[in-house]
Amino acid sequence: MQTHIDLNCDLGESFGPWKMGNDAGVIPFVSSINIACGFHAGDSRTMQQTLILAKLHGMRGLAIGAHTGLPDLRGFGRRELALDAQDLYCDTLYQLGALAALAKAAGLTIRHIKPHGALYHMLEQQPKLAHSFVSAAKDFSPTLQIYGLAQGKLLSCAAGLGMPVKHEIFADRRYLPNGGLVPRGQPGAVIEDANIAAAQVMQVLQHGKLTALDGAELALAADTVCIHGDRADAAEFAAALHTQLCASGVRIGAGT
Amino acid sequence: MQTHIDLNCDLGESFGPWKMGNDAGVIPFVSSINIACGFHAGDSRTMQQTLILAKLHGMRGLAIGAHTGLPDLRGFGRRELALDAQDLYCDTLYQLGALAALAKAAGLTIRHIKPHGALYHMLEQQPKLAHSFVSAAKDFSPTLQIYGLAQGKLLSCAAGLGMPVKHEIFADRRYLPNGGLVPRGQPGAVIEDANIAAAQVMQVLQHGKLTALDGAELALAADTVCIHGDRADAAEFAAALHTQLCASGVRIGAGT
Amino acid sequence: MQTHIDLNCDLGESFGPWKMGNDAGVIPFVSSINIACGFHAGDSRTMQQTLILAKLHGMRGLAIGAHTGLPDLRGFGRRELALDAQDLYCDTLYQLGALAALAKAAGLTIRHIKPHGALYHMLEQQPKLAHSFVSAAKDFSPTLQIYGLAQGKLLSCAAGLGMPVKHEIFADRRYLPNGGLVPRGQPGAVIEDANIAAAQVMQVLQHGKLTALDGAELALAADTVCIHGDRADAAEFAAALHTQLCASGVRIGAGT
Amino acid sequence: MQTHIDLNCDLGESFGPWKMGNDAGVIPFVSSINIACGFHAGDSRTMQQTLILAKLHGMRGLAIGAHTGLPDLRGFGRRELALDAQDLYCDTLYQLGALAALAKAAGLTIRHIKPHGALYHMLEQQPKLAHSFVSAAKDFSPTLQIYGLAQGKLLSCAAGLGMPVKHEIFADRRYLPNGGLVPRGQPGAVIEDANIAAAQVMQVLQHGKLTALDGAELALAADTVCIHGDRADAAEFAAALHTQLCASGVRIGAGT
Repeated sequence: MQTHIDLNCDLGESFGPWKMGNDAGVIPFVSSINIACGFHAGDSRTMQQTLILAKLHGMRGLAIGAHTGLPDLRGFGRRELALDAQDLYCDTLYQLGALAALAKAAGLTIRHIKPHGALYHMLEQQPKLAHSFVSAAKDFSPTLQIYGLAQGKLLSCAAGLGMPVKHEIFADRRYLPNGGLVPRGQPGAVIEDANIAAAQVMQVLQHGKLTALDGAELALAADTVCIHGDRADAAEFAAALHTQLCASGVRIGAGT
Repeated sequence: MQTHIDLNCDLGESFGPWKMGNDAGVIPFVSSINIACGFHAGDSRTMQQTLILAKLHGMRGLAIGAHTGLPDLRGFGRRELALDAQDLYCDTLYQLGALAALAKAAGLTIRHIKPHGALYHMLEQQPKLAHSFVSAAKDFSPTLQIYGLAQGKLLSCAAGLGMPVKHEIFADRRYLPNGGLVPRGQPGAVIEDANIAAAQVMQVLQHGKLTALDGAELALAADTVCIHGDRADAAEFAAALHTQLCASGVRIGAGT
Repeated sequence: MQTHIDLNCDLGESFGPWKMGNDAGVIPFVSSINIACGFHAGDSRTMQQTLILAKLHGMRGLAIGAHTGLPDLRGFGRRELALDAQDLYCDTLYQLGALAALAKAAGLTIRHIKPHGALYHMLEQQPKLAHSFVSAAKDFSPTLQIYGLAQGKLLSCAAGLGMPVKHEIFADRRYLPNGGLVPRGQPGAVIEDANIAAAQVMQVLQHGKLTALDGAELALAADTVCIHGDRADAAEFAAALHTQLCASGVRIGAGT
Repeated sequence: MQTHIDLNCDLGESFGPWKMGNDAGVIPFVSSINIACGFHAGDSRTMQQTLILAKLHGMRGLAIGAHTGLPDLRGFGRRELALDAQDLYCDTLYQLGALAALAKAAGLTIRHIKPHGALYHMLEQQPKLAHSFVSAAKDFSPTLQIYGLAQGKLLSCAAGLGMPVKHEIFADRRYLPNGGLVPRGQPGAVIEDANIAAAQVMQVLQHGKLTALDGAELALAADTVCIHGDRADAAEFAAALHTQLCASGVRIGAGT
């Protein structure tokens, strides 16, 4: 059985006067965080506040990453946009650099990048975009870790370019037989119960597989597990998942 | 007589499908450039293209800076906005970092920062904002040069915080008796004739003074001279100014 | 004693994925609503949803208005912007028209306009802007009612141009001796207790005056009372105020 | 031979400080104009200026329409966005209403709507979006004319909903054998020569057909011909096309 796992969560998704998520409630239970960079959510002040929150929890080795997205606040980066590969390269560096400067001013360093929303899925489907995204990450720093769909095409591209990768599974999302996620809005897409979510994660850690929505078994290995911070019960869910994994003998940590 | 001067120009002010200025025409004649960072003009792709253009001219020691502005594309950063000091701190780091990441990916480094438009004037009038701006620059890099109004309050604040400064005068703008610029839109605000602009610069270099619009004499010392890239005749104006200064025995360079 | 009053509330202040306020909780207790039009808050879909909500409550003669603001989502229209008078004229018509088209498609009509946030205060201080705002409203419809600060300069301008006006007081804000509001962020700016808010309103209705923060008495007459929809307890506050006014013999209604 | 045709052009595509196109140069030669509404280009002030320009040419019966687009200034509405049908409905009404209010204030009326850029093509491919678009137009006004691809699916949907339609061909774009346009960026997509463009239009008017890029013949009937206002030679092209069509006995006019 795999005995270490990273728990990651998307934070800093407020914007201007509008609040989203329960960052302070979730952060004690995760080992890495992905901070929105102003394109699909967040703004410079929210980024700073999230970094300060992260710093308070940094003694545990919390890993900080950029959560980069499509330029679409109103759609929260969840609407596919026919983005040019070169624009994606530039947008990715822009967001990475913006967060890095705010992080440095707070005494912190960015260790990973994770694509958000529709971009996450576009990178699995469009190899040119995946190459642009990874190239931007590499030109930012050749040691920046890429978080992406476990055993997916983005990470395969990243590994091919010599970049460190973290295979990600979702605790609270159900899977299609092809390894993709059941799209939001379809029945069964989201796992509400933290016990079932924990069981899904343990199945991967113990047996290297996961049961898709239709009952098919997917072979999956994971380095990191995503918890969604925009659930109404985000903090409780994170706490419950953290507790159950620890009780099953799994140590939570971002690793190296 | 002062025999060295920096010529700087604001570049990268296009946005998406819209072009502004004649960057390729102006860049041969200046020794430092200020690149818009997406808040008042520019976008990540335009920033990259401007950096690539700068790299082609880099053998001459062209200095690259961030031209940071208010978040107001439609108003081109020329409308005052009652910005909170902490928001300005964060917005400044955000823009600096975004440009820095794109610059690093292009093999370049940012050496200075210059505030744009209404922000330029707000920093002379609001000490709290000036302090936030300089603090952001310092937290980005303690060697980042601050370009600002010659003998103005921003640079006085910057020097007080130990930051290197460059006193800026404007070749093609006329001055008020108090040392400020005649606001755009008022008669006589802009000097159209490159000969007159060169004479204004030479008056500062030779005699340390400049004649204001009303005939008053201002004591002024300058490290850098701003040329506007959005003039219709920007390239010709830059070439003429460059030629006349050289003919008067002045060497153009960004210095150290 | 004045026996009729309008209660108005700002609704539709969500944006994209971000929720704000408790529109459904507040709407039963007010007689007119002001809908954000996408510049400082709201988006086309949120506007439609707010209109549909309003339609469900329309049998009571709920009056629908446009809440127009500065183009600054991140700052929620609360940061002053040095807007050109002609730009304000155009922005006002743009927002009015956008809401009017969505209202017409929902079988509703816009009856009033109210400026939001920093714009509300700018219109009291800058007569040129007030004139632009009222002119836009008049060119939209000469019967559109203008909501503004009771006995303030916007309404004086509006009346001078022949437009119908509604003098507004704030139930939950304290006043300066000059008739302006104590700025948000200053101690005592907001009245938390609905009983005290109701007493402030009743003082105006019964005696035509209101006690400012410093104890001074202001002569004030009101046609409409603003309730803020972004309070945490917005629905409870609205219900309590509604109840107390009715208990004091005041009828709530938008009037003609 | 068909002896009447409408010439339409997209105008008002400037944004803030950035200019695009040569509106004043093109407008004398067209019989209908499509004004950008602030989503992909334009802003409220640019819209007003375009309307004032149109009014100066209104004695000729110039028809004014809304050119509605995707919310993507940077991409100029040319990047497909996975827009929800209900969002499109609301965005369309929002843009229509905004222009209508500015038009009314200028003493003008909107007579048609035309989708812009990527939206134009999405409406041919996604029936749900086409239905939303037409429904918004119909709810705005049941007599609003819909401009769309000649013999395409948008107009077929519009006709099915009882809306008046105008079949559009492009003077300066080449066609695919399936009736779609050769995508921008592909060789031969744009016809540079006004003589060839005029010949393409005359082939449709005289013979009801058009030769695709691969030589195939397409059966096409047209009510209106689009001229692009963002060509470098837009005014000359429009003048040449206008002259040639008139010389061939075709009368230019928006019709009823």
